[in-house]
Amino acid sequence: MATKILPAALERLIEEFGNLPGVGPRTAERYAYAVLRRDPTQAERLARALNELHRRVKTCPVTFALIDAEEEVSPLYTDEARNKQLVCVVEEPLDIVALERTGQYHGTYHVLGGAISPIDGIGPEQLHIPELIERCKNDQVAEIIIATNASVEGESTALFLQRYIQEASLKITISRLARGIPVGVDLEYADQITLTHALEGRRTL
Amino acid sequence: MATKILPAALERLIEEFGNLPGVGPRTAERYAYAVLRRDPTQAERLARALNELHRRVKTCPVTFALIDAEEEVSPLYTDEARNKQLVCVVEEPLDIVALERTGQYHGTYHVLGGAISPIDGIGPEQLHIPELIERCKNDQVAEIIIATNASVEGESTALFLQRYIQEASLKITISRLARGIPVGVDLEYADQITLTHALEGRRTL
Repeated sequence: MATKILPAALERLIEEFGNLPGVGPRTAERYAYAVLRRDPTQAERLARALNELHRRVKTCPVTFALIDAEEEVSPLYTDEARNKQLVCVVEEPLDIVALERTGQYHGTYHVLGGAISPIDGIGPEQLHIPELIERCKNDQVAEIIIATNASVEGESTALFLQRYIQEASLKITISRLARGIPVGVDLEYADQITLTHALEGRRTL
Repeated sequence: MATKILPAALERLIEEFGNLPGVGPRTAERYAYAVLRRDPTQAERLARALNELHRRVKTCPVTFALIDAEEEVSPLYTDEARNKQLVCVVEEPLDIVALERTGQYHGTYHVLGGAISPIDGIGPEQLHIPELIERCKNDQVAEIIIATNASVEGESTALFLQRYIQEASLKITISRLARGIPVGVDLEYADQITLTHALEGRRTL
């Protein structure tokens, strides 16, 4: 366009916001304009948080959860109250947040760092699977809960993991999160596969 | 919760992202994690854009559009090709972007800086209305297109503006954007008020 419509600094911010996942041009405009209208200190705080992020966050060498740069190992692992013989295996670090919100789990975690996905070129060798086997031996793990996503990639990762652990001939119980009808969902709206899982996993009362 | 789940730096970024309009905790988590997984230079670029925003953007003293800090007046006003006798009145600076995208408008703009909204404590005295009257006189404005939003606030602002300009006894044509059925919408899904507008504004072929 011949004439510039928006100031260059605003255009730049819109472009940068547009790099966030799922943010289109209109949403990016909305974010940038909201920042502009508010106090500059708010923009500064967000900028500071962004600048500090990579420097202050690292990956736990045992569980591969995200931890503070000054920590050695994840507090969710070192915590005495946590059962180290019970390991919940998840795809991504944020999955831990979802599980911790339940307040019902007192074991430890192991982050795979993704799921097997041939399309994206992610094979089992890119995931933290050998480190999991290592942990199983070191901590005498008694049960592994596979909590990968309910996606095709999550399912194949779970299957691969199950076989891999069985082949390592460790005496470990392997379990998976239950599949079924989520709370608050009407039966008529539940999809076929979920209902099949719900039937298979039915519990005697 | 007893044990910290996420690193403090990540929590801070999630909180700051959560201050953006319409961003809930889950979306903020998603943004922060995406930033963490990508190259640190991307986080730095967003941080820099945020830090420069307020310093490099100012408001045009004539049109109240957003302009570069080093500009005197909006280029959409100074541009020789633009008809200064035609003024399109909008609520917010970003409305200009939407109108410019049509490529069909070659007049100038005037940003009111909001809409009359007694609930939010915004009266006509907080809007750039006197400056509009001033412009009408200085530029011998021939037509004002009122392009406020199709909301209750936008409608009352339009009505107020119309009366205000008429009372100033200026010889100016006042027009409003057409109301009607948007492109791609089925008649059966159009709401009552839109249909009423479409009937009233019907055009003879």
